[in-house]
Amino acid sequence: MATPLNIGIAGLGNVGASVFRLLQQNASVLAARAGRDVNVTAVSARDKTRDRGIDLSGVTWHDDPVALAADPAVDLVVELMGGAEGKAFDLVSAAVKAGKPVVTANKALLASRGAEVLALLQDAKSSIAFEAAVAGGIPVIKGLREGLAANNIRAIYGILNGTCNYILSEMTHTGRDFADVLAEAQQLGYAEADPTFDVDGIDAAHKLSILTGLAFGCVPDVKHIDMKGIRHITSLDIAFADELGYRIKLLGTARVTEKGIEQSVEPCLVPRSSAIAAVDGALNAVYVDGDFSGKILLMGAGAGGDATASAVVADIVDIARGHVLPLMGVAGGAVVPLVPADLTARVESYYLRFKVLDVPGVVADISAILRDCHVSLESVLQRGRDPGQPVQLIMTTHETREADMNAAIGKIAALQAVMETPHMMRIEEFEG
Amino acid sequence: MATPLNIGIAGLGNVGASVFRLLQQNASVLAARAGRDVNVTAVSARDKTRDRGIDLSGVTWHDDPVALAADPAVDLVVELMGGAEGKAFDLVSAAVKAGKPVVTANKALLASRGAEVLALLQDAKSSIAFEAAVAGGIPVIKGLREGLAANNIRAIYGILNGTCNYILSEMTHTGRDFADVLAEAQQLGYAEADPTFDVDGIDAAHKLSILTGLAFGCVPDVKHIDMKGIRHITSLDIAFADELGYRIKLLGTARVTEKGIEQSVEPCLVPRSSAIAAVDGALNAVYVDGDFSGKILLMGAGAGGDATASAVVADIVDIARGHVLPLMGVAGGAVVPLVPADLTARVESYYLRFKVLDVPGVVADISAILRDCHVSLESVLQRGRDPGQPVQLIMTTHETREADMNAAIGKIAALQAVMETPHMMRIEEFEG
Repeated sequence: MATPLNIGIAGLGNVGASVFRLLQQNASVLAARAGRDVNVTAVSARDKTRDRGIDLSGVTWHDDPVALAADPAVDLVVELMGGAEGKAFDLVSAAVKAGKPVVTANKALLASRGAEVLALLQDAKSSIAFEAAVAGGIPVIKGLREGLAANNIRAIYGILNGTCNYILSEMTHTGRDFADVLAEAQQLGYAEADPTFDVDGIDAAHKLSILTGLAFGCVPDVKHIDMKGIRHITSLDIAFADELGYRIKLLGTARVTEKGIEQSVEPCLVPRSSAIAAVDGALNAVYVDGDFSGKILLMGAGAGGDATASAVVADIVDIARGHVLPLMGVAGGAVVPLVPADLTARVESYYLRFKVLDVPGVVADISAILRDCHVSLESVLQRGRDPGQPVQLIMTTHETREADMNAAIGKIAALQAVMETPHMMRIEEFEG
Repeated sequence: MATPLNIGIAGLGNVGASVFRLLQQNASVLAARAGRDVNVTAVSARDKTRDRGIDLSGVTWHDDPVALAADPAVDLVVELMGGAEGKAFDLVSAAVKAGKPVVTANKALLASRGAEVLALLQDAKSSIAFEAAVAGGIPVIKGLREGLAANNIRAIYGILNGTCNYILSEMTHTGRDFADVLAEAQQLGYAEADPTFDVDGIDAAHKLSILTGLAFGCVPDVKHIDMKGIRHITSLDIAFADELGYRIKLLGTARVTEKGIEQSVEPCLVPRSSAIAAVDGALNAVYVDGDFSGKILLMGAGAGGDATASAVVADIVDIARGHVLPLMGVAGGAVVPLVPADLTARVESYYLRFKVLDVPGVVADISAILRDCHVSLESVLQRGRDPGQPVQLIMTTHETREADMNAAIGKIAALQAVMETPHMMRIEEFEG
């Protein structure tokens, strides 16, 4: 058997402790698969005294994580501190410069400093693996960069944030409203005290940007992603979607077009009978559409210490086996800048919900605006009749240019009988 | 860029022609990903004159596929002839001996001659890749052997035969009977004239045996698999399952127990709300349950020229990138013999259907036998009342030892009022 691979872990939170446990608990099967022993020789974390349920005796403790890169007893650095700035970047940078491979779960680093990370690796005798940065235990990075390497990727669709999917699932199953379910999710520890990062789509956008980079061999950059969160989804939307045969999911979408790459994170209606609609609770799922493979779905736990540790250690096994790949799947020079496509040129169908006064002519006025903006209707649904009072008016459209849709919504919002900002969501049929 | 990788393809059927087209059509993205050009330099097939819609000019034609192994212009052999015997084995063997890597879609070869193939690779400077042997375009081999390499695998569940899944899906959606849907599937080309290989579970068992080998680092051997097909499923079963909240799927299952590895291919009831129930039509899906990852689902096209070509070429890209793995994911000496577990010791819950005469006491008699055999009932459903005439009696059980269940079924079958062999299917809840 070859010489052991010695690991240094920076960050001993939930994921770091799980990685430590996994490497001990599954040591024999890992050695058989990797062809060598894998040992943790050094760690670094904030609080040396905290009980993490792991035995750190015999393991070197570094107060400064960056010191792991220089520790001669460390062959491979695992970075689990997170964040795009500060020590995480410093450690990754130092390890790469020292010629040591890095395994990281740091999505922010790649999503917002992708170009710098690529530059760092240029001509380096090192590598950065990041299976754990997207969709936790689901081997989606490997699936995309290797398993589907034969394909020109046409599109990616992902449920990439477990918190949002949990909230939307609970709203669907119980009929409760967003705020109510969010409060419960916070109590249960499924959502942060400040839920912005999750519910406004930022976390999903970080992950999507990495998938985009891999799918299209380009520099990931989260700032090109159009983000909409789920705060505005109401139990009414959930119920009407159901009545129309759909579920609402926060979907990250990246598609290649002649004009560039379309990227968005937004709540969408997906057919209730589709496999992606069956992705329930805190699960994640990614659809990859390749020109030869067709649509491949990968689904599983997108977060949690153990599931994420599974991904971190898969990367470690790869490196122990001598398997290392260029960051975005194509040799350094071939990574291209991301050319974002104009989303308003997208042709999509839509779900619309208007709160209107039940007065004569309101449906006619709205319909006329839609017609004038070249929006053709698929269905119209009005719940209740209550003359002079507010009622809900739901419409679905045929395929429409997004710019036309936006123009129509702007005009409809200005109508006297329309009582609140119209609600609009894309319908994603997963066809073709 | 490194020297080109020259490919020889044996077998130019549906998959072979797709591989040829893919390598031409996606040449530039493949070169970027592989870091070198990939060219087809030689082919072999039965009929030189057949029009396959591909341009073979400039490509050497070998009448004897085994000659590809010796052709100095071939670096890598793609074997797409199929079959465990004859030329396919000879070619694989010759290529390995010549030190050339092999990419194959040949499930029969691995499933029934796994030990020989492993022996062939012992000390060889060669490798055999087989992503295309299981579940077509779904990167399940890679997912299992690499993506989930950190885990002790607890179980695998797979919908591994597209023909059976198509037939069961059609029966579900239309209420039609097996024979009727099979005949249509044959007309549409989804099922062979002799459907035995598909509908009796043999094809699924071949694939399951390979997944078992990878999951547990053991020698695949299809003869250890308990096989039941779908010929006996009726529209009644489909309808009653639906009423109980289930779908019927032909499921390949491999589970590790203290006594060894349980393997079966059999139609099972799965919860209608589960993601695996949403696997519709000719799709395939595999659930892998790892001790750290939890349950990961991979789903997509399990057959077809293009999807299978995606998997073949993914293997080619791996090899072009210098990435090669031991056949069953563990170094040669570590592959263990498969120890099959006694399936009758399984503890499962069951769906039972009896065609009985509607006479006083029949339910009491059946219930008494079940009780005496330690089978506890979950639900009882009787459709229609028709004194003296045959009626359907449906029962579901709590968890029961399979040996007890079999004993009970044997006794019930002998009752005067029971008019045909009882129907029994395992219920797979995917819990825990």
